[in-house]
Amino acid sequence: MTRPKIDPPHMGEPYLLTPGPLTTAYSVKQAMLRDWGSWDSDFRAMTAELRKRLLEMCGDSGGALDCVPMQGSGTFAVEAMLGMIPRDARVLVLANGAYGQRIAQTLRYLGRDMQVIDKGDYMPPRGDEVAAALAADPALSDVVVVHCETSSGILNPIEEIAEAVRAAGCRLWIDSMSAFGALPLEFDRIEYEGFVSSANKCIEGVPGFGFVIARKSALERARGNSHSLALDVHAQWEYMNRTGQWRFTPPTHVVAAFLRALELHAAEGGVAGRGARYARNRDVMVAGMRELGFETLLDARWLSPIIVTFFNPAHPAFDFTRFYDLMKARGFIIYPGKLTVVDSFRIGCIGQMDEDVMRKVVKAAAAALAEMGVDDAAPPEAALKERARLAA
Amino acid sequence: MTRPKIDPPHMGEPYLLTPGPLTTAYSVKQAMLRDWGSWDSDFRAMTAELRKRLLEMCGDSGGALDCVPMQGSGTFAVEAMLGMIPRDARVLVLANGAYGQRIAQTLRYLGRDMQVIDKGDYMPPRGDEVAAALAADPALSDVVVVHCETSSGILNPIEEIAEAVRAAGCRLWIDSMSAFGALPLEFDRIEYEGFVSSANKCIEGVPGFGFVIARKSALERARGNSHSLALDVHAQWEYMNRTGQWRFTPPTHVVAAFLRALELHAAEGGVAGRGARYARNRDVMVAGMRELGFETLLDARWLSPIIVTFFNPAHPAFDFTRFYDLMKARGFIIYPGKLTVVDSFRIGCIGQMDEDVMRKVVKAAAAALAEMGVDDAAPPEAALKERARLAA
Repeated sequence: MTRPKIDPPHMGEPYLLTPGPLTTAYSVKQAMLRDWGSWDSDFRAMTAELRKRLLEMCGDSGGALDCVPMQGSGTFAVEAMLGMIPRDARVLVLANGAYGQRIAQTLRYLGRDMQVIDKGDYMPPRGDEVAAALAADPALSDVVVVHCETSSGILNPIEEIAEAVRAAGCRLWIDSMSAFGALPLEFDRIEYEGFVSSANKCIEGVPGFGFVIARKSALERARGNSHSLALDVHAQWEYMNRTGQWRFTPPTHVVAAFLRALELHAAEGGVAGRGARYARNRDVMVAGMRELGFETLLDARWLSPIIVTFFNPAHPAFDFTRFYDLMKARGFIIYPGKLTVVDSFRIGCIGQMDEDVMRKVVKAAAAALAEMGVDDAAPPEAALKERARLAA
Repeated sequence: MTRPKIDPPHMGEPYLLTPGPLTTAYSVKQAMLRDWGSWDSDFRAMTAELRKRLLEMCGDSGGALDCVPMQGSGTFAVEAMLGMIPRDARVLVLANGAYGQRIAQTLRYLGRDMQVIDKGDYMPPRGDEVAAALAADPALSDVVVVHCETSSGILNPIEEIAEAVRAAGCRLWIDSMSAFGALPLEFDRIEYEGFVSSANKCIEGVPGFGFVIARKSALERARGNSHSLALDVHAQWEYMNRTGQWRFTPPTHVVAAFLRALELHAAEGGVAGRGARYARNRDVMVAGMRELGFETLLDARWLSPIIVTFFNPAHPAFDFTRFYDLMKARGFIIYPGKLTVVDSFRIGCIGQMDEDVMRKVVKAAAAALAEMGVDDAAPPEAALKERARLAA
């Protein structure tokens, strides 16, 4: 197979090695060079195309799902989806990082009755735990989980969780923000009530809207359920189906960019092709960083192809802020860590980047270490103990 | 004074003669040709610049106000602002069109106690009416009004309303979505608690975010008051002041475009210069349309320089859908009417357009009428009676 052509930054900007906003193809940005009337038939056709293409990526042979784009950042779309959960539901939130915590926080704003299984910074919630929790509390009706928790970069075991939820007769809602488009989430294989993702993640659009993909039955049932006019998914769905328009002004340029991003996604081989490039990015980058002495937080089996957490080196000359600036000066913007127990940083694998770029990232890291006088990037003992605890 | 240079569409797209999304300068769109890391210092500086420049347009010599950008369409920002109104408030909504109605609808989602003065499609709410309503019901604490109601294009008498609200010791909240940036809203002259506008209106950016500008005291008081995590203005304000970042992923490209739009706005002479161009657009366009026989819904004193409503001609050969298509084929997208009583359409005066463009709009309308076989664009008698009722 020929390697997909990727598109380097054209305007001298650094690569964004982050979970989004990310480095996008130049042609995606060029699609924003014209203005669209949001009520005009041309733009309505673009909205219809966007919804159709996203649904085609869901592996839903029965046509049970529908797609509802929602203005704002991904968090807006998550809140909109959570507003579909019946007001009298009791919700189980599976948290292992900032995004799981945010779901719980949102449900508190919405006044939903809730139980949280908090696995800490990066331990995966497992199917048997979920089954046990649902068995212990039969009032639980809905479960919410993060697909890839970018706080640590962990890929949560979504299939075994979905199976436990299905077996208990509950509904599953998935925050697949940073996974959909690169990791399979096929409705024919994984039962869910709905999930959410956004324009500026694995489909490599620019930020400005997200989308809820949910069972039509769930969309019907959500009528009158939302706490918010703007974030009312049922109202947006009903209006969009009736008029072809977004209920309120859409980010027209961002939508045009997304359509171009969807074309590039399809040309790369869809979810499988995109996922393969990201996995190769991760493998090449992690191997190179390990050669420098860096260690990943997670065991290989939990490493997502989205973003990878590395322990900060123990060496006294290592300073993350300086490392960040040295990497930025070399054209790479990395991401700070988000762990509470040990110091860490993150490097993303998604966006318009391939393994050649990832080799340059490793080279830049080597040069930055040299400039700081760090001759060994090995983590402190405490970090390795933490990892051993995880592996156990 | 030399006329400001305007920038015709570069990509062969039609002019958008609407209240937004509108025709923007090419350099505004070109600013979207690079990717930004939303947590990086470069982008944080852009966010700070945006807030500073917007505040400078508010005529707030005492520094009482602060600016909180909010992701999503303008309606998202309106809902976010309404979420600042204390939960135990009793709110007077002044409605004369779809946007006033939407405010009332949003407050119903939010569970606020409310009274609505509904003036119908386009009658202005007057200061003495507001004073009487506030005197009759001392429990009323907050008043919400639309600055320019684009349903009809009416410019509501914001100064006399503000004076009535101030005299009654109440708080005023303004939806200045389609007015701010072209019509004065000076805090030193008009007392208000807060107002809201968006990127893609008179500042001529592209759609993707709005902003709340409010007294710092109101922002402080709004802590814990919001019904929504994503739309929590206090939380966004507090986080942005502390970190320089948006709380959730901002539409980075839209923000970059907006900074360029702000530069162009300043170069045109700020609010006064922008307002003067729009007023000239309106005057030239309305005069030309009147020559064709068209009549405006509103009396001259209520005509905003934002968008103008015309009655559909009485001539039996006139068909709005065909007129729309014929105008679009000539490069101009117009806007359907939104009145319940009589048939109408609207033509916007805002965006990268000047009087030369407006003359071409009139020519296109003349050609469209000729092609339809409409030799007189005069409205039906009923429409003129409706206008007489308004003037009385």
